[in-house]
Amino acid sequence: MTSEQRSALIALAHAVEPGDARLGALVAGVGPVEALARIQSSTTGVAHSEGARLRLAAACVDEAEERAAAVGGRIVTRVDREWPTQLDGLGDQAPMALWIVGAANLRLIALRSLAMVGARACTAYGEEVARAWAADLAGDGWCVVSGGAFGIDAAAHRGVLDARGVTMCVLAGGVDMPYPRAHDLLIARIADEGLVVSESPPGESVRRQRFLSRNRVIAAVSRATLVIEAASRSGTIATARAAAAMNRPVLAVPGPVTSPASAGCHRMIRDEAAILVESAQDVIELLDLSGGVRASSAQFRVDEHDRLSASEKRVLDALSPRIGVGVEAISAAAALPLAEVWPALGVLEARGWVRQDTTGWRVARLTRAAPRG
Amino acid sequence: MTSEQRSALIALAHAVEPGDARLGALVAGVGPVEALARIQSSTTGVAHSEGARLRLAAACVDEAEERAAAVGGRIVTRVDREWPTQLDGLGDQAPMALWIVGAANLRLIALRSLAMVGARACTAYGEEVARAWAADLAGDGWCVVSGGAFGIDAAAHRGVLDARGVTMCVLAGGVDMPYPRAHDLLIARIADEGLVVSESPPGESVRRQRFLSRNRVIAAVSRATLVIEAASRSGTIATARAAAAMNRPVLAVPGPVTSPASAGCHRMIRDEAAILVESAQDVIELLDLSGGVRASSAQFRVDEHDRLSASEKRVLDALSPRIGVGVEAISAAAALPLAEVWPALGVLEARGWVRQDTTGWRVARLTRAAPRG
Repeated sequence: MTSEQRSALIALAHAVEPGDARLGALVAGVGPVEALARIQSSTTGVAHSEGARLRLAAACVDEAEERAAAVGGRIVTRVDREWPTQLDGLGDQAPMALWIVGAANLRLIALRSLAMVGARACTAYGEEVARAWAADLAGDGWCVVSGGAFGIDAAAHRGVLDARGVTMCVLAGGVDMPYPRAHDLLIARIADEGLVVSESPPGESVRRQRFLSRNRVIAAVSRATLVIEAASRSGTIATARAAAAMNRPVLAVPGPVTSPASAGCHRMIRDEAAILVESAQDVIELLDLSGGVRASSAQFRVDEHDRLSASEKRVLDALSPRIGVGVEAISAAAALPLAEVWPALGVLEARGWVRQDTTGWRVARLTRAAPRG
Repeated sequence: MTSEQRSALIALAHAVEPGDARLGALVAGVGPVEALARIQSSTTGVAHSEGARLRLAAACVDEAEERAAAVGGRIVTRVDREWPTQLDGLGDQAPMALWIVGAANLRLIALRSLAMVGARACTAYGEEVARAWAADLAGDGWCVVSGGAFGIDAAAHRGVLDARGVTMCVLAGGVDMPYPRAHDLLIARIADEGLVVSESPPGESVRRQRFLSRNRVIAAVSRATLVIEAASRSGTIATARAAAAMNRPVLAVPGPVTSPASAGCHRMIRDEAAILVESAQDVIELLDLSGGVRASSAQFRVDEHDRLSASEKRVLDALSPRIGVGVEAISAAAALPLAEVWPALGVLEARGWVRQDTTGWRVARLTRAAPRG
């Protein structure tokens, strides 16, 4: 049944544009399998079903998994364990499925993630703040989520990569369609060391509507959204409003009043209750307050260790800070079944004890490794 | 009786340091004449009365008016018509009397005044914001109040003077003791074109406690306080808190998070509900909202004129935008007794129709004259 639902969700992701609330409502009402059947038989009773049926017929949905694998990726749907439940905040606009390239577990990463967004036409000030704060957040075990664009997005991704942290890039086109093209090497590096994510199947190019939906996914997958620089009316502001609509904290960085690039941040602080932040430490403290997931240097104190369960301690003892270890090896070393290893890793990662990279699981760094400019 | 109270208040202003709440409470309880009598007979029952008595004995209180006149000033006490009732916001710490140099009417000026305060060690950014906004506010008929110090204070005063507006400098020492000495020419020019004010008699030098009390007077005499740049713990922050304690709006200018000079502003915005402002226009709009006194370009529309009383219209008709006219001449031209001319001028100035300078009363400028850097 789950497999049937999974196939239906993948098919539905081909049938309509990302963020289609009509399909979302239909799936919420009758489930993905029945929703797919109605679209295929043109009995949804909604006007766009014929378009969806035609798109489905044109798409090679049966080969979707193979095509994802062919570009080095995988598909994670709403019924998969890797699905980040935070995306449910989007309601009827939540994705049916995501295409993902990268070794990290999306659900676990999302538990400690912050969206860092801002103007493409940023200033040197904004770029430096994005780079330095992203590095500090990565050093504290946070995943920085952004959109791979010019300006603040790229500075945020690069700050994380320089600090050897995990960053997530959500694309408006397929995961094999890096955009902007000038960032193809950057996005490839993010796929190697973090996650590249898209709502659209491989091969799909960017479109205006897809940027809007992509921005909502960035806000939804993250615990909070930080705006570094933004003009008054911009896609960045839309992302921040999407976060606010889901009751996620919106943080904003002030700047000179003489800089139009900061006008959107000031507007959000003054009129939309965005929280003014002055440093990466401010951000980390607010994230600690706003979620159940604690993350601070205090996490490595003995009393924090005492709060771990017996199996979590055994899993932690089986890991090294220097070498990545696979789950099977952890299971053997800790003498625990995989069914206990996975939840323990989830808790340990959420609390900042461990992290996952392409080589497996390892103890998270104990001190900040973020280089400062 | 009023004359006796006035003399008593002037004497009491010599007896203790500015902001002395014990004297304030005594005067609130028994009135200034009885309070003075008790201090002179050492029967106040409070510990510092002997010190106050000695100070009174040493001061040549009888010659206070002459000494004020000798330095080009006058004394305004709580019982005088020129006393700004806004100072009552200080409660027991309100001054007994003020020494004033300058032709403008303190009470009327205070009705349209904004405190502009900030760091002595300001940046070029803060200095330019202070200068430009002060000019814009002056162009809109607002009096900018500050402390004559290096940095933001001086930039604010100079911005007003460049725009040919009215600025008020509240000194921590006597009105004849310009401080800092490097600003003696600036302060002399403020006395010529605006107002120089002090709680202390002529000849008194600055002291640490007098700066603190002076800061409270700046906040109290103004309708709102604008902080341009301030370090985290500073006298500027104390001034803003004094304003907030009197329920006066506190406005703050954001700046780069990389600038320690803006840290105090950011702290006030984030933690103390200061209102983030991005432009002089923002400030003017907030002042319009926060007080009963409207001031905007709309004030010169016909419907605004219609709201004036018959005597206010006659006084306004007696004035010119180009030549200052004295009250006697207005009284003659408008065929109104002085007792009607004064209140009409008060309303007209409060609504931005007229202004007073050293040559008399004139119609306020109809367009902004503020030069921009």
